[in-house]
Amino acid sequence: MTDTTSSQPAKAWSGRFSEPVSDLVKRYTASVFFDQRMAQQDIRGSLAHAKMLARQGIIAAQDLADIERGMAQIAGEIERGEFAWNLDDEDVHLNIEKHLTALVGDAGKRLHTGRSRNDQVATDIRLWLRDAIDRILALIGDFQKNLLDVAEANAATPMPGFTHLQVAQPVTFGHHLMAYYEMTRRDAERFADCRKRVNRLPLGSAALAGTSYPIDREFVAAELGFDEVSQNSLDAVSDRDFAIEFCATSALLMTHLSRLSEELILWMSPRFGFIDLADRFCTGSSIMPQKKNPDVPELVRGKTGRVNGSLISLLTLMKGQPLAYNKDNQEDKEPLFDTADTVIDTLRIYADMITGIRVKADAMRGALTQGYATATDLADYLVKKGLPFRDAHEAVALAVRTAEGLDRDLPQLSLAELRDAMVHVPGTADKLADDIFAVLTVEGSLSSRNHVGGTAPDQVRAAIARARARLG
Amino acid sequence: MTDTTSSQPAKAWSGRFSEPVSDLVKRYTASVFFDQRMAQQDIRGSLAHAKMLARQGIIAAQDLADIERGMAQIAGEIERGEFAWNLDDEDVHLNIEKHLTALVGDAGKRLHTGRSRNDQVATDIRLWLRDAIDRILALIGDFQKNLLDVAEANAATPMPGFTHLQVAQPVTFGHHLMAYYEMTRRDAERFADCRKRVNRLPLGSAALAGTSYPIDREFVAAELGFDEVSQNSLDAVSDRDFAIEFCATSALLMTHLSRLSEELILWMSPRFGFIDLADRFCTGSSIMPQKKNPDVPELVRGKTGRVNGSLISLLTLMKGQPLAYNKDNQEDKEPLFDTADTVIDTLRIYADMITGIRVKADAMRGALTQGYATATDLADYLVKKGLPFRDAHEAVALAVRTAEGLDRDLPQLSLAELRDAMVHVPGTADKLADDIFAVLTVEGSLSSRNHVGGTAPDQVRAAIARARARLG
Amino acid sequence: MTDTTSSQPAKAWSGRFSEPVSDLVKRYTASVFFDQRMAQQDIRGSLAHAKMLARQGIIAAQDLADIERGMAQIAGEIERGEFAWNLDDEDVHLNIEKHLTALVGDAGKRLHTGRSRNDQVATDIRLWLRDAIDRILALIGDFQKNLLDVAEANAATPMPGFTHLQVAQPVTFGHHLMAYYEMTRRDAERFADCRKRVNRLPLGSAALAGTSYPIDREFVAAELGFDEVSQNSLDAVSDRDFAIEFCATSALLMTHLSRLSEELILWMSPRFGFIDLADRFCTGSSIMPQKKNPDVPELVRGKTGRVNGSLISLLTLMKGQPLAYNKDNQEDKEPLFDTADTVIDTLRIYADMITGIRVKADAMRGALTQGYATATDLADYLVKKGLPFRDAHEAVALAVRTAEGLDRDLPQLSLAELRDAMVHVPGTADKLADDIFAVLTVEGSLSSRNHVGGTAPDQVRAAIARARARLG
Amino acid sequence: MTDTTSSQPAKAWSGRFSEPVSDLVKRYTASVFFDQRMAQQDIRGSLAHAKMLARQGIIAAQDLADIERGMAQIAGEIERGEFAWNLDDEDVHLNIEKHLTALVGDAGKRLHTGRSRNDQVATDIRLWLRDAIDRILALIGDFQKNLLDVAEANAATPMPGFTHLQVAQPVTFGHHLMAYYEMTRRDAERFADCRKRVNRLPLGSAALAGTSYPIDREFVAAELGFDEVSQNSLDAVSDRDFAIEFCATSALLMTHLSRLSEELILWMSPRFGFIDLADRFCTGSSIMPQKKNPDVPELVRGKTGRVNGSLISLLTLMKGQPLAYNKDNQEDKEPLFDTADTVIDTLRIYADMITGIRVKADAMRGALTQGYATATDLADYLVKKGLPFRDAHEAVALAVRTAEGLDRDLPQLSLAELRDAMVHVPGTADKLADDIFAVLTVEGSLSSRNHVGGTAPDQVRAAIARARARLG
Repeated sequence: MTDTTSSQPAKAWSGRFSEPVSDLVKRYTASVFFDQRMAQQDIRGSLAHAKMLARQGIIAAQDLADIERGMAQIAGEIERGEFAWNLDDEDVHLNIEKHLTALVGDAGKRLHTGRSRNDQVATDIRLWLRDAIDRILALIGDFQKNLLDVAEANAATPMPGFTHLQVAQPVTFGHHLMAYYEMTRRDAERFADCRKRVNRLPLGSAALAGTSYPIDREFVAAELGFDEVSQNSLDAVSDRDFAIEFCATSALLMTHLSRLSEELILWMSPRFGFIDLADRFCTGSSIMPQKKNPDVPELVRGKTGRVNGSLISLLTLMKGQPLAYNKDNQEDKEPLFDTADTVIDTLRIYADMITGIRVKADAMRGALTQGYATATDLADYLVKKGLPFRDAHEAVALAVRTAEGLDRDLPQLSLAELRDAMVHVPGTADKLADDIFAVLTVEGSLSSRNHVGGTAPDQVRAAIARARARLG
Repeated sequence: MTDTTSSQPAKAWSGRFSEPVSDLVKRYTASVFFDQRMAQQDIRGSLAHAKMLARQGIIAAQDLADIERGMAQIAGEIERGEFAWNLDDEDVHLNIEKHLTALVGDAGKRLHTGRSRNDQVATDIRLWLRDAIDRILALIGDFQKNLLDVAEANAATPMPGFTHLQVAQPVTFGHHLMAYYEMTRRDAERFADCRKRVNRLPLGSAALAGTSYPIDREFVAAELGFDEVSQNSLDAVSDRDFAIEFCATSALLMTHLSRLSEELILWMSPRFGFIDLADRFCTGSSIMPQKKNPDVPELVRGKTGRVNGSLISLLTLMKGQPLAYNKDNQEDKEPLFDTADTVIDTLRIYADMITGIRVKADAMRGALTQGYATATDLADYLVKKGLPFRDAHEAVALAVRTAEGLDRDLPQLSLAELRDAMVHVPGTADKLADDIFAVLTVEGSLSSRNHVGGTAPDQVRAAIARARARLG
Repeated sequence: MTDTTSSQPAKAWSGRFSEPVSDLVKRYTASVFFDQRMAQQDIRGSLAHAKMLARQGIIAAQDLADIERGMAQIAGEIERGEFAWNLDDEDVHLNIEKHLTALVGDAGKRLHTGRSRNDQVATDIRLWLRDAIDRILALIGDFQKNLLDVAEANAATPMPGFTHLQVAQPVTFGHHLMAYYEMTRRDAERFADCRKRVNRLPLGSAALAGTSYPIDREFVAAELGFDEVSQNSLDAVSDRDFAIEFCATSALLMTHLSRLSEELILWMSPRFGFIDLADRFCTGSSIMPQKKNPDVPELVRGKTGRVNGSLISLLTLMKGQPLAYNKDNQEDKEPLFDTADTVIDTLRIYADMITGIRVKADAMRGALTQGYATATDLADYLVKKGLPFRDAHEAVALAVRTAEGLDRDLPQLSLAELRDAMVHVPGTADKLADDIFAVLTVEGSLSSRNHVGGTAPDQVRAAIARARARLG
Repeated sequence: MTDTTSSQPAKAWSGRFSEPVSDLVKRYTASVFFDQRMAQQDIRGSLAHAKMLARQGIIAAQDLADIERGMAQIAGEIERGEFAWNLDDEDVHLNIEKHLTALVGDAGKRLHTGRSRNDQVATDIRLWLRDAIDRILALIGDFQKNLLDVAEANAATPMPGFTHLQVAQPVTFGHHLMAYYEMTRRDAERFADCRKRVNRLPLGSAALAGTSYPIDREFVAAELGFDEVSQNSLDAVSDRDFAIEFCATSALLMTHLSRLSEELILWMSPRFGFIDLADRFCTGSSIMPQKKNPDVPELVRGKTGRVNGSLISLLTLMKGQPLAYNKDNQEDKEPLFDTADTVIDTLRIYADMITGIRVKADAMRGALTQGYATATDLADYLVKKGLPFRDAHEAVALAVRTAEGLDRDLPQLSLAELRDAMVHVPGTADKLADDIFAVLTVEGSLSSRNHVGGTAPDQVRAAIARARARLG
């Protein structure tokens, strides 16, 4: 696509051009190979425009009827893959318009009245992107629903919570998964926010200054479901910030899914052994019969780079452009399409993959016995009995050293051993009592974190219930 | 900053560590040199936390009083630049806590009850960023107000509208400037949307799993002006998507200002000569006495790269991290601070610079005589008289060729010359009448684009009025 | 592509897999749609491998003959577009191997002995990239040759040299163009440096650890024209730094061409009017008959973003991967191919476009009369006559002010007027003599900068001659 | 820094400027806060320039003596931290020049003859970067030397080689580490290649066009150790491709170190337990006494994002700039300095940290018993005995299934059990003999991969020896 002012092969419009473009230049400058993806949006936009033109008396009712008839046929041809896209006609707009004129004659030539390809393409791309966002929002919902099911089944399944990939404190697997619900919830909010800015109608801006025909932009907006009309013609044809916002939002979603993928890969490694992924998301090896590789999560990780790259492509091309339309902007479409495709495919697969996780609860629990996961609980116990926190911390350090020396976990020490270990910290011995062993259990640790956002199984279930209510 | 679990020099907490970190490692891992910028936010957060602890009976009323007294003194010391920041205490949190304990004793040791540095830093950074966003929103408003004044003064000042940096159609300078109002309006929307996601309270998430103390997170949220509390502790301490969203939003704002800067630079070049910038935004030369350079807009262009870079830094560091907190996240602050500083400084300067534009209306109008800016108007005229658009287009092409040959602009041709030029396109001669010359004038062209978003001076004034109403 | 260990649909190799992958997963994980571009390289690599296997007695001579026969047929099928690529066979390697086995039986099954797809794909991609680099180096040479011709024709054509887009000092257009020769010369050096690191043979690394067969890697390297063999199997199958280096190098080349494009666009704007581009690189407008837009340079500017994006994609995907092969790496190919395509197309077009520049020497010279381009020469003149530089600078400032007041350029002042203007700077009057007017001419200014790198026409011609000698 | 033409506060040079810049603008446009890091390079460059001026008779011998005396004093002041940097003097160049003139009078005013700040800053930054590269090359060597020691000590220490983070085949820990030797070797090559392009002298290009003084650029180049002089003045003052190349090269080095860091973090997790890092690179926890976190490798991972960001910053700012110098380029320094600092600190720490790895050989070997690491060896054994590879693969799949059922590793099956397991694949039973058990051992597997690049301990030792020879 180029602006209204630059569209066709040189010879097509005037004697000012003394030589046609070469095939290489034609291919370098054409967009029809990728912008044909917006064909249905182009037709929808043209139909709304034509309807308005007729309503305003700019074209005749018969013209509108001809255009509607022609477009119906073209839409069918495209859907059936029968439409003959032609490089010489450069882009999706001219391909359709030319074919329309071939089908219905003069009415086709009148369709472009009061618009230009500059506002036409800006409209098409917004319609396309709005559809993509709606699709993505639905798919995030699908993913979340499945995630909630797995989280609920594991609301009380203990596993080590890691920081720095070191064992920190016990959490439940359901709680862990719910972190990803929260992340994707914010992603959905961002897509919805982005949609507001996508859903404004540029049509009527014409090449860059508006048009001298008595158009009715509000009517077109209503026809096409836009929330409002753009307020400045120069801005409307030249800015692509909504596309960049979409890519930035997508980069965040992919980053979240990359983090989840990293965890799935770790958990499926024999060194963790916390889960198994369903076979349909893995591949084996042509050489090593023992292999089962988490290909899909690895690709998700890799494809995150792809989306980050598209974001940079768009930021780079927009920066420093003077108003209004410049041909640089033609390069906006491929990164945008690729980003939407990547996000959509990834969400579709993930929604399915998340239900295909087989949880190895024993391995998760086993891993809790390495790393003194309840050391903090022991310190908190002492604090609640009145010890200043720094003293409690030091006392537990000594207990851990004793446990390490005996190659045991903290709850495997006897009360006497615990008291002995801490003897150099005054005031500890009398605070330790038999109730400490309930505190040092995994279940005791989990259930004590009983507030909004905490890992207590009841809280996890409550969070799931709230999430379900939101999803409706 | 590191998570709760990783803060101090080895020897500080237990005998497990057999050697202290070297000075280089200390410097490599410390954050106090940059995170001290969040000192006031850290204190605000601590005070709210302490108040809640006292209210819940977790600490005594006297502890709270001591903490409040100590913090008041510390806040003053920091404000007056008297606080002695210490690399050995690694980060802003420990520096303040240690000094507090030195000032008020045991109460200082009790402040950290029920929280960890993981949720503490996440709270501080959100408070800091919320302040920065509020500042930015106000500054965008300042910039827009000044822009509207210049736009209004030039609502009817004609200049060439360019596409591909070629003369396209006449627009008014006020209309052109209003494109930037629209762009920054969307930027403001995005910052406001981002603020919603920033303004959620992570405190209470503790290290990663929540805490076993009977905390009241809603109370703390209300104290600190947060809209809601975070819903998942693992997510709350580990994700930085809000910071990335802020950087992406900033990158878009800077991209818009880079585009405006590009135009200011072009317009101030002697080849354009459309404007002059006030001296206070330019510098001269130590060698060439004739030079006056638009340094500030050039720097704005350059600093856009800086913000794009910070965005990539943050996306890169977040991608692929397993839950929960990892030390990688300490690297989030410098790009974030630098981005906010860049945006704030740039907006402050721009608000002033925009009023310092001296418009050279004659040069703008002069440039309209090159490039046949009203050719489209001539075609539209013929269409309105009944000619099919493609014929009209061809007819105008011929007229342009004639004008080129005579080295004149279109309105400088006589009616006879126009008819002659188009003679090979049937049906044109009788459509051309004396009213064509009103159409071919710059003012005629401008005033005909009279719809929402169009460049007609009345529309520009209406758009300015709507904008003023929005700004309040 | 995946590593040896992950290639085929689940059911293909063992009963461990209880379900096949879905169509979506198949499409998500397959690479055959894009990696088939390396088919000829895959075949070359396989033939060299087979030759070595036969030479080492690992397969029989008859096996080799069969493989060579089969591969000849396959290569032909691919070249003629008759090869039936099959999604179920996932990638280019398996597609070819399966077809080979279908054609020649058991020998096909023996081809994979002692290698894995991990080292196979690493070899293919290096062969492909080496070809691409050689192509690019030749195209840079073509571009430079044409650039030198235009530079030579304009070695003495004066134009304003700009800094900050303000007129600074006179330069020649040939000198200006030679800046781009220097930039692309460095680009060519970088591609040649990158080629050294590309041209190392990974084959023999097998899946990740090497192979137990008695292979001869040096023989394969010699067969395929590699400079050396890789020294570590884990590194050889997992790193893609050479591809990232290629993209970074390409980003620099595109940045240079983007800068040249920016200048072509400026120069072709009516506000500059310094050049005209040949029609075949421009397009007109479907609406405005007067338009001729520099589409190609604008696209070059835009496509620079594309290459920057690919660079970020690859850096993102590589970062943080543990050894050895991970599926993330499959995402390396599309950005790499796209980058090479973009660079190659752009260079091809540019080599032609540069010769299609029509220089408007009068406009260039005319622009020199605005901006006091020889003010520095006047100051240097005074310094050479003994005035301290700061005094000279002040004296010229006064002369410029006088000239501004009279609306003339410096050389249009008389000797008396010059002396008058500077009267407040002691010691200037007696230094000014009639020889000053030779200094103040454009030609005088140009020819005085007569050292390596300077803009004196003789120096420009000498630089062109040196460049020609380098190109051979 | 700005170009020669834009340096000082308005009032400083002429009456053209009617108002001074504001404090905010001054801060926004000044560079002295960061470019003072190039002070010693600035002085070195000035001394060489002055020596040449005197030699060419452009300044007097006494001027040179004065300049040398003044600069010696200034260099000392800067080194001792006594130099008073002044924001009003904008950048490092003017600060030093002004102080010089204050110290030595007129000679200071003559120093700037025949140069401009445009070529001066380009020279300074190249001198600075050359020093940084030399430092980096030395540090890479230090890191490699230590790496080789650890690799040698573990040349025969078996560990699982992973692909997809699944157990693939046995490798030795020394072999694994040598992959990072190879990566950093290429990094060193790239830095050395980059140095060639850095080490070209721009001085003599003056503002943009060269100078009219009879300078001797080759002399200056020799004085300063530059390999050659730049060949085009416009290019020399405006391009920063060498800085971008440096950042791209740094990004690759950091990517490699990020990968190593990822592995150190994994290996130190209790789930792997392969290594322990020395305490001085870790920190503990203020809450959890059991924690020991790999802070340094995590920060290396995070700081990789920082370097990627700087690369994007520089690419963004350079793209689309017309020639010659524009103020945008002032933004080149901070990303460049930050990148060099990050790389230097990281290498310094890593060289030390790598020797602080404690290898837990038992855990590594233990991990080899999970995942059937020698399955490929069993298949290769059968192939060597004459079985077609696909049959061998299937046979091993059955053996793995049997072993899985018995919860044993392959070498723990008896010969009879192996034969039984494979009975359904014809021709296997008679090929299996007692020599299979040597093949299935870890040591057998390792030693069989005995070719350049393979993991056989002898090959690893040979690779280490070659590396040592290279390092000298």
